[in-house]
Amino acid sequence: MSTTKPSIGFCGLGAMGFGMATHFVERGYIVKGFDISQASLDRFEQAGGVPVATLQESAEGNDFYICMVATAQQAQSAIFDDAKPIIKGLPNGATLLLCSTVPATYAQSVAQQLQQLGRSDISLIDCPVSGGAARAVNGTLTIMAGASPEAIAKGQWLLKEMSGENKLFIVDGGIGQGSNMKMVHQVLAAIHILAASEGMGLAVKLGLDPRIVVERVNGSAAWSWMWENRTTRMLNEDYYPGVSALTIILKDVCIVTSQARATTFPVPLSSLAEQVYFSALNQGYGPHDDAGVLRIYHNTSLSQTPQSWLSEDEVNKRTNLVITLLTNIHLLAAAEALSFARHLGIPLDQLYGLAVDAAGGSHSLRDVGKLMIRGLSGNEKNWMGVCTHNLDTVVTDLAEVVGAAQDLKMPLFLGNAVLGAFLGVRMRFGGDIGEAAVLKAYVQ
Amino acid sequence: MSTTKPSIGFCGLGAMGFGMATHFVERGYIVKGFDISQASLDRFEQAGGVPVATLQESAEGNDFYICMVATAQQAQSAIFDDAKPIIKGLPNGATLLLCSTVPATYAQSVAQQLQQLGRSDISLIDCPVSGGAARAVNGTLTIMAGASPEAIAKGQWLLKEMSGENKLFIVDGGIGQGSNMKMVHQVLAAIHILAASEGMGLAVKLGLDPRIVVERVNGSAAWSWMWENRTTRMLNEDYYPGVSALTIILKDVCIVTSQARATTFPVPLSSLAEQVYFSALNQGYGPHDDAGVLRIYHNTSLSQTPQSWLSEDEVNKRTNLVITLLTNIHLLAAAEALSFARHLGIPLDQLYGLAVDAAGGSHSLRDVGKLMIRGLSGNEKNWMGVCTHNLDTVVTDLAEVVGAAQDLKMPLFLGNAVLGAFLGVRMRFGGDIGEAAVLKAYVQ
Repeated sequence: MSTTKPSIGFCGLGAMGFGMATHFVERGYIVKGFDISQASLDRFEQAGGVPVATLQESAEGNDFYICMVATAQQAQSAIFDDAKPIIKGLPNGATLLLCSTVPATYAQSVAQQLQQLGRSDISLIDCPVSGGAARAVNGTLTIMAGASPEAIAKGQWLLKEMSGENKLFIVDGGIGQGSNMKMVHQVLAAIHILAASEGMGLAVKLGLDPRIVVERVNGSAAWSWMWENRTTRMLNEDYYPGVSALTIILKDVCIVTSQARATTFPVPLSSLAEQVYFSALNQGYGPHDDAGVLRIYHNTSLSQTPQSWLSEDEVNKRTNLVITLLTNIHLLAAAEALSFARHLGIPLDQLYGLAVDAAGGSHSLRDVGKLMIRGLSGNEKNWMGVCTHNLDTVVTDLAEVVGAAQDLKMPLFLGNAVLGAFLGVRMRFGGDIGEAAVLKAYVQ
Repeated sequence: MSTTKPSIGFCGLGAMGFGMATHFVERGYIVKGFDISQASLDRFEQAGGVPVATLQESAEGNDFYICMVATAQQAQSAIFDDAKPIIKGLPNGATLLLCSTVPATYAQSVAQQLQQLGRSDISLIDCPVSGGAARAVNGTLTIMAGASPEAIAKGQWLLKEMSGENKLFIVDGGIGQGSNMKMVHQVLAAIHILAASEGMGLAVKLGLDPRIVVERVNGSAAWSWMWENRTTRMLNEDYYPGVSALTIILKDVCIVTSQARATTFPVPLSSLAEQVYFSALNQGYGPHDDAGVLRIYHNTSLSQTPQSWLSEDEVNKRTNLVITLLTNIHLLAAAEALSFARHLGIPLDQLYGLAVDAAGGSHSLRDVGKLMIRGLSGNEKNWMGVCTHNLDTVVTDLAEVVGAAQDLKMPLFLGNAVLGAFLGVRMRFGGDIGEAAVLKAYVQ
């Protein structure tokens, strides 16, 4: 371990933050960490970190500071409003990384507040992260960073320490665009997390063996990072404390819908996911892992749900219903994320490159996203005619899934919303267009 | 009592059927009634009816027969498939009124089966009813009847006995169009029932006095028949057995969404209502009154929910959020019902006249429905410019409601879906159009 490495200030030792902070400890940095939970501080000390008693102390003498609290409200308190805040401790010319997921407008207000307080010496980087606790520990996170070129130059080495190879995305547009990039990525994440529960709920109600369905979906066009990741916890019914609390993705999707309302853009699938998450919150699932939203669809323990005896043909047929459902939810999620990104001036190729290999990844995005980006560019006339599956086929297949769920008397929130959106596009343009044209649900 | 009145056969002595059958008893008819429940038969006998032991017996010797079972499956069993079915008892030349709410395709299959069995002597009328148990008892139901002119001529007197003044609607198009008319009416009913719970849930969470909100909404543009009717049961928390079970409207909305899928038409609000009803069903609310769906939004007893102390200004402001929510849900419900009706070839003026004073009635339909019908006629160029509230104003107001619900961490399923649909229309046509133009969510 080299002792010439600079010491780093850190606040927010939650699931993600603890992983990030201990990653630096393991890489030989002195990390001064603060958290409001004494248990987290103790755990941090055991992991080799230096726990401190105030935010101000965690900043003192550190030219680099990472803020990884959960919300904009917490960040505001930690940086400015606390009795002994970060701002009082940060040395002249320090670099402050705001890694929390916050609205872009909040990140911009941090820059303004620094200026108003006469602390323009501080280089602020708006750099939310993605990838989950395991990648935080390994230093292979995806990071979306917006800032002035000067700030990026100062902080880039730190961002690189935390991020995987080709996982650091410097987003054009300065402070705010890192958060906006994360936000549009979370459009995918929020919809895919609910989709995983909806797909698994359907599978179980169809009498399928959940372990086999997980494998089959993972090897199909319906794959998503969230499906692969969340279903492992569903299979083990490992919801509490879990890895990522429902309240976290709910907070993120609330940022999506608020910013969409503020800019009069429709995000119907994100909105719907938010409503289902609020329902789950009201049922007491807030502190549980978001994979536990499965219980909205199927509230009997998986291990106690009898599986039907089914012929191999019938297993294939029913598994295909689940695959059709997920593929098409992911397809419309891609359209929602990409079109919202364009609306916000986010570089689409960068979003694609980032999301396809991150927590928002899906084969639908991978396979159809580039064509959607060409459609959104406005430079290509015939993109709607490009066709792997035509819309009429997609509608027929998805209608069968929706009908099957109806027969099972189970809610299929996303499946029904997606079918409705597809039918709306079909009404306007006919059914003889490619599946990428579902983008038209979001653009003129 | 005159004994020259013909005797009537009847099956299905549930909430509605019992009222209809006893209405005939009170009007001096001999009514031979059958039900699978002995308790219902006993109650029917006490009310002066003639209980019989088989369906066949209930039909024997009766030139007029009313089938008021709950579902198409039950109707199929009662008329044809039972060991002693209605068809075996019905005398030559009898008139058979199918009053159950069934898919139009099922009503058409009854006609085909009669023909195949060589019973074309029977005059079938496809005549679902609406209006609730109280109007059934009073003989003031709304009835939507489709049949051959000959069958209508024979059965009209009976339809008139059951229906209120100007509440009997003979729908052009023969067998099936009575059911289709009922179905598009139930688009309104199904959405408005959920809207009543969503509006009341929001009101209570906003700290408003539910009794005052009920009054204010009843006197506002947000009035609907369902709001006025269902909120009385919410205020009394009178959900079981209640008046109209959740399973009834759920069955009706399943007919709506199945027929919409079969004819590739989007009915996003009906679909969403169905998913929320399925959620409520899974929480055990199926046998309860549909007003009890309130508990999806607010699961604390109303009488135990503390009201906030609020200034009169604040009460007005918050009540207006509820009024805005309901007015706009009803507005899009009107668009969904009218455009689906046109898609099915249902006469729109007739639907309007029927629904505006029936269980599907709302001031939004009353105030904007005629303009929407002009828009759907295709003969009027400038209907989208006609404007009481322009779309931008509507979007701004509704976004405020959705934001308030988000701050309260409560689901607002319909409110969010309606805002999404409005934003979709705004994206295509701009915000400087009239509110009736939200119809464009359903038409090219």
